[in-house]
Amino acid sequence: MHTVDIIMKKREGHALSQEEIKYLIENYTLGKIPDYQISALLMAIYFKGMNDEEAKDLANAMAHSGDMIDLSSIEGIKVDKHSTGGVGDKVTLILGPLLASVGAKFAKMSGRGLGHTGGTIDKLESIPGYNVELKVEDFMKQVKDIGIAIVGQTGDVAPADKKLYALRDVTATVDIIPLIASSIMSKKLASGADAIVLDVKVGHGAFMKTLEEAEKLAKLMVEIGRLSGRKMTAILTGMDEPLGHKIGNGLEIYEAIETLHGKGPKDLVDVTVEIGAHLLGDANIEKDFNQAKILLHQALNDGRAYHKFIELVKVQGGDTNVIKQPELLLSKKLEYVYAKESGYIEDINALEMGKAAMRLGAGRETKEDQIYMEVGIDLHHKIGSKVEKGDVLATLYVRDKGIEEAKNLILNALTIGQHQKEVVLIKKTIK
Amino acid sequence: MHTVDIIMKKREGHALSQEEIKYLIENYTLGKIPDYQISALLMAIYFKGMNDEEAKDLANAMAHSGDMIDLSSIEGIKVDKHSTGGVGDKVTLILGPLLASVGAKFAKMSGRGLGHTGGTIDKLESIPGYNVELKVEDFMKQVKDIGIAIVGQTGDVAPADKKLYALRDVTATVDIIPLIASSIMSKKLASGADAIVLDVKVGHGAFMKTLEEAEKLAKLMVEIGRLSGRKMTAILTGMDEPLGHKIGNGLEIYEAIETLHGKGPKDLVDVTVEIGAHLLGDANIEKDFNQAKILLHQALNDGRAYHKFIELVKVQGGDTNVIKQPELLLSKKLEYVYAKESGYIEDINALEMGKAAMRLGAGRETKEDQIYMEVGIDLHHKIGSKVEKGDVLATLYVRDKGIEEAKNLILNALTIGQHQKEVVLIKKTIK
Repeated sequence: MHTVDIIMKKREGHALSQEEIKYLIENYTLGKIPDYQISALLMAIYFKGMNDEEAKDLANAMAHSGDMIDLSSIEGIKVDKHSTGGVGDKVTLILGPLLASVGAKFAKMSGRGLGHTGGTIDKLESIPGYNVELKVEDFMKQVKDIGIAIVGQTGDVAPADKKLYALRDVTATVDIIPLIASSIMSKKLASGADAIVLDVKVGHGAFMKTLEEAEKLAKLMVEIGRLSGRKMTAILTGMDEPLGHKIGNGLEIYEAIETLHGKGPKDLVDVTVEIGAHLLGDANIEKDFNQAKILLHQALNDGRAYHKFIELVKVQGGDTNVIKQPELLLSKKLEYVYAKESGYIEDINALEMGKAAMRLGAGRETKEDQIYMEVGIDLHHKIGSKVEKGDVLATLYVRDKGIEEAKNLILNALTIGQHQKEVVLIKKTIK
Repeated sequence: MHTVDIIMKKREGHALSQEEIKYLIENYTLGKIPDYQISALLMAIYFKGMNDEEAKDLANAMAHSGDMIDLSSIEGIKVDKHSTGGVGDKVTLILGPLLASVGAKFAKMSGRGLGHTGGTIDKLESIPGYNVELKVEDFMKQVKDIGIAIVGQTGDVAPADKKLYALRDVTATVDIIPLIASSIMSKKLASGADAIVLDVKVGHGAFMKTLEEAEKLAKLMVEIGRLSGRKMTAILTGMDEPLGHKIGNGLEIYEAIETLHGKGPKDLVDVTVEIGAHLLGDANIEKDFNQAKILLHQALNDGRAYHKFIELVKVQGGDTNVIKQPELLLSKKLEYVYAKESGYIEDINALEMGKAAMRLGAGRETKEDQIYMEVGIDLHHKIGSKVEKGDVLATLYVRDKGIEEAKNLILNALTIGQHQKEVVLIKKTIK
């Protein structure tokens, strides 16, 4: 097989065979195919696309480029979720304990974030002592014992994907749906879950700006998973405003705990329960979707989910005092943003809110940046809220940096007008 | 300027600015932009093209990546020609002495061949002693003194083009007209001639298979040259059969000498005179095209062109005895290919003929291959010739390798049928 022939084949619009895709990924991972051939191929894929079968083959080839986590020794159906990334998205922190509290097996490997806030793993590290680095056998044992573990990626998961992603980043080949889909799915397939729900964010705060694009991506990921023998669901959820009220690592743990106490904001609860209900069905715990939702609301309201979270934190070495007194996670230094006019909140630009949090120190602009756990933004209003001139729009938990810049970003991100708008959160479900 | 933004700009179908193209080529030549970004850009150019202005900027940026030969100290208009490459093409060997013999300045840097036969430089090296490596000052002095020099590329001509060509070769981005055009023109611009005729070959033996493609390429090269201040002409000539009768290094010198004696095959003479007449016009030696042709035919027939060739060979150190007895250039070991049926020659696949010559040792399959100067093929017939079963179709000048393979290739390359076809040699002129 010659790489140049494979590039030419794709350039001419033909589908690549499973053997060709395996050949490319195996040899690229080994350094036997150079970056410059792969980048030419990626650009050809931008123009000529990949069909579902090719994307499935690519995802599997990348998954098999590294460690494949084998969860089969854990009894029952192992569930997982993935979000394409949104501002204020702390769903995993709630969903994991919630599902485990009703009998599901949640074996989750999460990433660190390079974005507006940290990833799930960064957020959990704001809990003093919480150990995100478990050996695979300890990880497995913990899921068997308490039904849940949330850790950083152990071992060498999909190294081909890492290499390919770094190349895409510098060759204008990031925004290609089959590549995005197979990148995400390669890690999901390697992580070993049987049932996966994908939360594909859509809107100005998300990577996918339009429903059409998001739906294409979601359908392809579902197809890749299904062709690879997994139970798959994707939901398209709005990222027209941040999810919940709080943005920032400690603040998001805080809001997750509120939610686990049954006092979460409606949008956050709705997304969490929606995803959870699909997974309870897939896990054969509650096949009736509405019953599953009722079950999950109960577990949030009667303390089961909260106690499972306490158990998780304790087993992974975290200080449960901060879970009981989550205000310990937050900076004591506060700043406020006030409304300059009266009216309804018509728009909250989630991306700009994310940037504001990042300026305060909640996220990394470069890989080397330090994240401050205690900083962030508490938005007092959601789209449709009525505000009066002079009302507090947001409380800022700050250290010493980016305060004025963040305030300006927040003011600009909030549109106040005369129309009371409604937001549709769950836009579509793809099974 | 960021390379990834430039790739994105081209990917989205926008024209790149002169500054952007200069930035890319300068930094790529210096190794500051990696191959993997350039190959992604090349693939984007395959899909989105380049306009004339971009191609001109690319050709000039590549020309300026190395030495620019300054011929201005040579009086008069310096002329040059370039062929896109065909089988049996020995035009330069005839045209140079012919033009110099009537007063033009022919300052030619030629390449070595990687193909069916050697390049002009390889062919000249079949003359014992002929020195192809002159210093630039000696090269200039020789053109001033005798009106002609034919040497290998001196100095570092268009290194960006070399680097880019090597990359295109392994990334399925060779057959892209603006890249072919700017590659050829970068070397022409760097070589310093004022007037250039391009001989764009078209047909199954050429890189450009269709007239449409060849015309696109020709027009773009003419435009690049003109926008860069050169007098330009392109002719589209047929490569439906090899040019002349002889293929192979020594054999092509032999046929060139026959032609310089006024005894050349019609197609070879016609192309040479056509190109020469355009250059005589551009050089203000004879502005009337038909008069220029008559002048050139005279110089071939009255020995002026031949004597200029003798002078050239002598000045560059070559053994003029082989010019006087050119059979010394050829192998003494002969083989023959006989007609298996009677009829008219309907087709001669030039590419297959070239391969046959290469099998005998006339060309390089890889850069490391040794070329045998004395081997090759003498085709006894052209398209339209009548042959009887048992006639000799070709004489093979051989050493020890590839004989049976070459014979089979030649037999398969010749189609004998019942129709007497005519070939149109000069298909189009673009000024």
